[in-house]
Amino acid sequence: MSDIVIHCNEEKGQKFIKDVKGKEFLFSFVISYTETAETPGITVAGADPDFLKFTPPADAEFLHYGFCKSIDVIPMTPDGKPTPALLTKAALESAEIPQVVINAGSKIAPKLPYFETSLIPGKNIALEPGLEQSLVERAIDYGRILGRTLASCTDCLIIGESIPGGTTTALAVLKSFGINAHVSSSMPNNPESLKNEIVEKALKRSDSKDPFKIIANAGDPMIPFVAGMLSSASEITNVILAGGTQMTAVLALAEAIGYDKDRTALGTTSYIIDDKSANLLEIVKSISDIPVLSINPKLEDSKFSGLRAYSEGFVKEGVGAGGSIIASILKAGMDSQKLLELIDKEYERISSSK
Amino acid sequence: MSDIVIHCNEEKGQKFIKDVKGKEFLFSFVISYTETAETPGITVAGADPDFLKFTPPADAEFLHYGFCKSIDVIPMTPDGKPTPALLTKAALESAEIPQVVINAGSKIAPKLPYFETSLIPGKNIALEPGLEQSLVERAIDYGRILGRTLASCTDCLIIGESIPGGTTTALAVLKSFGINAHVSSSMPNNPESLKNEIVEKALKRSDSKDPFKIIANAGDPMIPFVAGMLSSASEITNVILAGGTQMTAVLALAEAIGYDKDRTALGTTSYIIDDKSANLLEIVKSISDIPVLSINPKLEDSKFSGLRAYSEGFVKEGVGAGGSIIASILKAGMDSQKLLELIDKEYERISSSK
Repeated sequence: MSDIVIHCNEEKGQKFIKDVKGKEFLFSFVISYTETAETPGITVAGADPDFLKFTPPADAEFLHYGFCKSIDVIPMTPDGKPTPALLTKAALESAEIPQVVINAGSKIAPKLPYFETSLIPGKNIALEPGLEQSLVERAIDYGRILGRTLASCTDCLIIGESIPGGTTTALAVLKSFGINAHVSSSMPNNPESLKNEIVEKALKRSDSKDPFKIIANAGDPMIPFVAGMLSSASEITNVILAGGTQMTAVLALAEAIGYDKDRTALGTTSYIIDDKSANLLEIVKSISDIPVLSINPKLEDSKFSGLRAYSEGFVKEGVGAGGSIIASILKAGMDSQKLLELIDKEYERISSSK
Repeated sequence: MSDIVIHCNEEKGQKFIKDVKGKEFLFSFVISYTETAETPGITVAGADPDFLKFTPPADAEFLHYGFCKSIDVIPMTPDGKPTPALLTKAALESAEIPQVVINAGSKIAPKLPYFETSLIPGKNIALEPGLEQSLVERAIDYGRILGRTLASCTDCLIIGESIPGGTTTALAVLKSFGINAHVSSSMPNNPESLKNEIVEKALKRSDSKDPFKIIANAGDPMIPFVAGMLSSASEITNVILAGGTQMTAVLALAEAIGYDKDRTALGTTSYIIDDKSANLLEIVKSISDIPVLSINPKLEDSKFSGLRAYSEGFVKEGVGAGGSIIASILKAGMDSQKLLELIDKEYERISSSK
């Protein structure tokens, strides 16, 4: 357990770890989309705008099959930085943690069985409200239904996400809630001024403090859906929000709709915690007293430069990687050394399938 | 437990009951469609052909919400015979058994979060093959994926179905496999000659003994999908095929693709076992040595004529009602008297909401 670091509420973190140690976990992977991602320079996840929309389903397919079906290439950048789904896959498989994919507004459906929610992609918040108010409510409702179902099947529900451009909508939501937020980026040179420009445009449109109106104006479909999931699931079982700053936007909304803070933890990688351009722990503390758990995947020791790049500020987190690694440690007693071997092996496999 | 009757393999039935008693159950509800249902006079499930396609999603919605969203009426015939989903709902709720809906070729998607499989409705087997061969394979593949996922989350996976006209395609599949089958009907005057006419037309098109070709020619999307689910799920956990003769068509295909017979049971109502126009137990014995579990819901003691009709030959089974009642007894020690009270109460609720 010594690999997992507890931040914020130490006592609750200890209790959370004790409650789920050796228990059954279920990984739910929420894929979504916001047209905000189409702003040039905003995300590394699929630099080509035509390609962006395939990132979430491709990640889902990679988790399931070990290769992608919606796209013809292996999910890494031209210079060999792989999708964080690689970390998630290695972690979930090492601990035999089952997974389900939830389509909460992805532009493209994955080629595998997935939960459909009939949500549509979010709009570009620089130009117009992210989603209609009625969609916010439906996303929360559907999230609540699914959260209840999934929570009934496990001792600990992990919720991960993939939504290109999602850190920008998260930033806009957090700022609308009056939170002093700096969010992480998938690139080492965080395009913060570009993000802030978009956020300013969204904030100018509305100064409402109503949580539902904030999400409609500045959010994306993932945020209300996952908040709904958290709300019902935490009444039944333990929940790990697996991700970085995007999950804090979920927390901000969850404060308004209610959830059980004694059964909720945020789980992430140390790369997010160590990100000097962001302030994840400050954001969490300003919203809630839940614990944050982090894990260092030690990718600086990887055999492959594409993986070592994670420790140099690229990608950092995504597809619930941090939370999945934490879950594999808690369920099956994995350690980060063993996991690194599995991650390297997985990287070798996909590289040689080129 | 004395309410549950074991048929066929008594020893395996005893062992199955012992293995799952007091354990966790998960109900999966597979909704599908075959245009074969559009033959006038073939089914009671939505007598109006325009209405037929709404039956499966309406059943799914009723299970979840206690009312339907896709249709505006309560799910019962004009003279008050309710959908079997009412029995399923009472049973699952009494034992706190979670449920998921799987769309495996339904014409209409339910208004709730559900597993999407991208399967399309089956064709009318009187006129043309039920589905393309490639769809049979994809249905099995996707069924396998989902079966694995769901089985990993429970000690016993219950699989129920709703597909109007499904007993006719089941009959055609069983006869194509060379099994001497007589199937049950949702009506007391089983339209067997009409069913046989359709089956004859399907059988005339092909005399292949290849299981995949049989399903493509004479089947519907539900059969290969559930066979795939059974195949992978029974490797991991216990499985109750909840239904009547349609599930025997699933078994016939599962024999060809493989499944664990020591972890599989068929669960149904006594109305199916007692149906003189059908021969469920003979069919099962001719396919496999798995046990059949049955339960008498004692609806003849109901306060309501619409429910008493079940014991007079109407409806009989559907939406996994028999298997769900068995599961509620096995998980939570329900008895059929207590359940009848809940079923009557549920009937009262929906009648008064008219």
